[in-house]
This record gives sequence, C-alpha cells and structure tokens, in this order.
Amino acid sequence: MKRFKLTLAYDGSTYHGWQIQNHHATIQGEIEAALGRLCQESIRIYGAGRTDAKVHALAQVAHFDSAKLFTSEIWQRGLNALLPQNIVVKEVQAVSETFHARFSAHNKHYRYQVLNAAFRDPMEGTRKWHLSGSLDLRAMDSAAKKLRGQHCFTSFAASSTEVENHEIYLKTLTLNQLGDTITFRLEAARFLQYMVRNLVGFLVEIGQGKRAVGEVDGIFAAKDRCAAGLTAPAHALTLMQIDY
Amino acid sequence: MKRFKLTLAYDGSTYHGWQIQNHHATIQGEIEAALGRLCQESIRIYGAGRTDAKVHALAQVAHFDSAKLFTSEIWQRGLNALLPQNIVVKEVQAVSETFHARFSAHNKHYRYQVLNAAFRDPMEGTRKWHLSGSLDLRAMDSAAKKLRGQHCFTSFAASSTEVENHEIYLKTLTLNQLGDTITFRLEAARFLQYMVRNLVGFLVEIGQGKRAVGEVDGIFAAKDRCAAGLTAPAHALTLMQIDY
Repeated sequence: MKRFKLTLAYDGSTYHGWQIQNHHATIQGEIEAALGRLCQESIRIYGAGRTDAKVHALAQVAHFDSAKLFTSEIWQRGLNALLPQNIVVKEVQAVSETFHARFSAHNKHYRYQVLNAAFRDPMEGTRKWHLSGSLDLRAMDSAAKKLRGQHCFTSFAASSTEVENHEIYLKTLTLNQLGDTITFRLEAARFLQYMVRNLVGFLVEIGQGKRAVGEVDGIFAAKDRCAAGLTAPAHALTLMQIDY
Repeated sequence: MKRFKLTLAYDGSTYHGWQIQNHHATIQGEIEAALGRLCQESIRIYGAGRTDAKVHALAQVAHFDSAKLFTSEIWQRGLNALLPQNIVVKEVQAVSETFHARFSAHNKHYRYQVLNAAFRDPMEGTRKWHLSGSLDLRAMDSAAKKLRGQHCFTSFAASSTEVENHEIYLKTLTLNQLGDTITFRLEAARFLQYMVRNLVGFLVEIGQGKRAVGEVDGIFAAKDRCAAGLTAPAHALTLMQIDY
C-alpha cells in the first residue's frame, strides 16, 4: 500500500459540507465515489478538517492509501475526469505512510469576504456576505488586534464543539478593503468549529457599532458562546491553505 | 402612465435565458413577478435583447410603463427586496415615453471568458469556458482583425435566425490574456443570434490550429452557418453594456 496526498479546490455552494452523509452530496462523498470508480474498490479518504456546508476551498488536503501503481498525473487526470465540475484535484503526491492530512497539518489559512455595497452583486452571491450599511473599519482593526494572539477561544467556538482544549494562538487576523470588498484573513495552527465565522461576525458587529472594542476582554473571560454574538454566514468562507 | 428604464445585472447560470416561459425560470419572468407583487398589477417589461440560457449580464436594460408614482429609489429597493439573490436592479430611471429598451439602443458590448489552464477552476465553472490545450494567440489576433469591420455575418449567425439583414459593422473584437484567462471583448450596434459565441468558437479553433486565418474571407463569402464551425458554450458570455 502507498499513501497519497490530495490537494483539492471546490465551490462548496451546492454541497452539504466535507463529511460524507447518506442522503446529501458532500465533498468527501464525491471524491470517494470518484476513487471507487477509478480503482474499482472502496477507498476511504481522510481530510485535514471538515468544511461546513457552502464553504469553499482553494487548497483542502486529504490522504488515502492504495495498492494501485498509478503515477501522480494519472491519479489527477483520472479523478478530475470523474469528479463534478465544481471539485478539482489540484495535486496528487505520493507521501510517506507517516503522513496524515489532519495530524501532520501545523497551520491553516482562511479567507472571509464581505461585499459592503448598497446593493448585492448577483455574481458574488455565493461567495461574499453582502452588508449594505457602513462599517467602521478602524474599530474593526482595533478589535482584530485585541483578538490576535494566545487566548481561550471558548466564546468564539460552537457551543456544541467536542474539542476540549480551546487555547489557541491566533497568528493572523487582518482585514483589508479593496473597492466594495472587505477581505478577512486568518491563520492559526487549528481552529475550533465555527471559530472563523464567529470572529468575523463579532468584527462586523463592531463595525456596525453594535459592539465596542472594549468588550473583547470580557468576552474572552466569559468563556461562553452567548457572549460573542453573531455567526457570519458560511458561503463567504474559503479554506485557503494548509501548511505541513 | 410613466415609462421607466431598468438596468439589471444577473448570474444567468440557473435561468433558461431572458424570455419568459411557462415552465422554466427566466430573467424576464422573475422581474415581471417582482413588479407584479410590488404594484399589485400585471406589468410587461421589454428587454434590449434576449440573453440565452446561462448567459450573464452586468448591465442588461429593459423598460416598462406604470401609473405608480414611486421614486426611482423606491422602485429599486422594492424590486431588489422581491427578486432572487442572483438578479439585481442596479438603476431605475424615469424616461420619456419615446424611449424603447430595444429600439433606442445603438451599441452593445459583450465579454467572453476562456480559462486556458491544465485543470478547471471549480469557482469559475459557471463563468469561463475551460480549454486545456495551448492556444496560438497571435493567430487568433490576426483572425480577429479580419473579422472586425463591416461584413455579412450570415456564416456566424444561428441558421434559424429570423433577422433578415446580416450586414453588421463589428466595431470591436479583441482578446487579451491575463494569467490563465483570455478575455474577448465585442462591440457592435447589434448582434445576430449566437453571433458572439460563433465568433469566439471560430477564434478558438484558429487558436487550436484546426482552422487557418486565411479561411476567413471564404467563410464570409459562403453565407452558410456550416462554414464557420464551433459555437462556444453560453455560460462564459456576459452582456456588459448597452449604449443609448
């Protein structure tokens, strides 16, 4: 058996997220179906992490084992021929059997995009969160600065999260405006469930003047999801890169 | 009664084109439905031209008549609140009753986008035509130069077209490459059915070496759709602007 690392891009708009489900189309489900057709055997893939329904990826990573002697190029061409148009295998690499898409990852990068304009853009409706009111970017910047660094992110995690350790070093949390689009970039060794969307939701409420920068310390201290408020919608989130 | 000019943008991916149909979602159908709900009366709209199924628009134009005394802003906000996410009213203007979206138009601008890369981009699958082989851009440029100007475009029109006069002055036909994307821009007072897609399809065959630049004169002379060949797919075409 050999182990292979897959690098994947997908438009998540029409999928019920990464994890395979019985009655819904998922990214894992589509890839395992394509591998099954290519290899004529059932192959399980292991993702670096689950993306939620409607979330996109430019470079999601997964691994699988196979006894097939295909070259990387054959794996890639074969899978891309069998996968739907909105999923693409960008790279296939033979890796050592100690490689694990989830446990070997040491850094993840996410992007979140807001369209801040009077009216929606019909071409961007599945990619950006449309917010028509004005946003105080300076206040959002100040709050982002306070959110960066080492914190217990319980107040920004899904209340149902199964992970116990919520201490995370948030290396990057920045926002930049270009035209009508505000792009948030986040980087950390790991993220808790909904953490990116909860951080963005909180920053947007800061920008709208509904919350104050001074509340950040209290929210961290509360260790309570209810303290932080709004969850930004999934469709404007993209998993950009995973470092190994 | 007052006449109003609507400027519209839409992602045509999920629509069966502009023209209203009984059992399929269309742009005209959605807008008339929204107008009907807003005004509590049946209102017919007249488009500058029909876009095909899956074709997008950044600035399609239509007009309608109404006795309602709404301001432009109320029309716009009301319609946008009632329309689906992938259609947006960009502007509503009160115009003179001599204005006609179709007959007053004197120039149309289209854009066609090709993704020329080894693998597809899942985020661009509904916007660009993916072609993986190499394309001879210099040959395509030479052919574009021969296609520009005043010609009888019968060989580049749908064989079923109902319009009789095929003499058109093609003011602009250019192509530019930026990264993996080749963008075609076309401008003329009017276009025949499928004309943009047929011109792009022919230029792509030139780029692939399947056709030669020297064939252009013969194709014009043939006045036969079969002479020109390939029709480029609809989903990568966008109506950009209409001049009045």
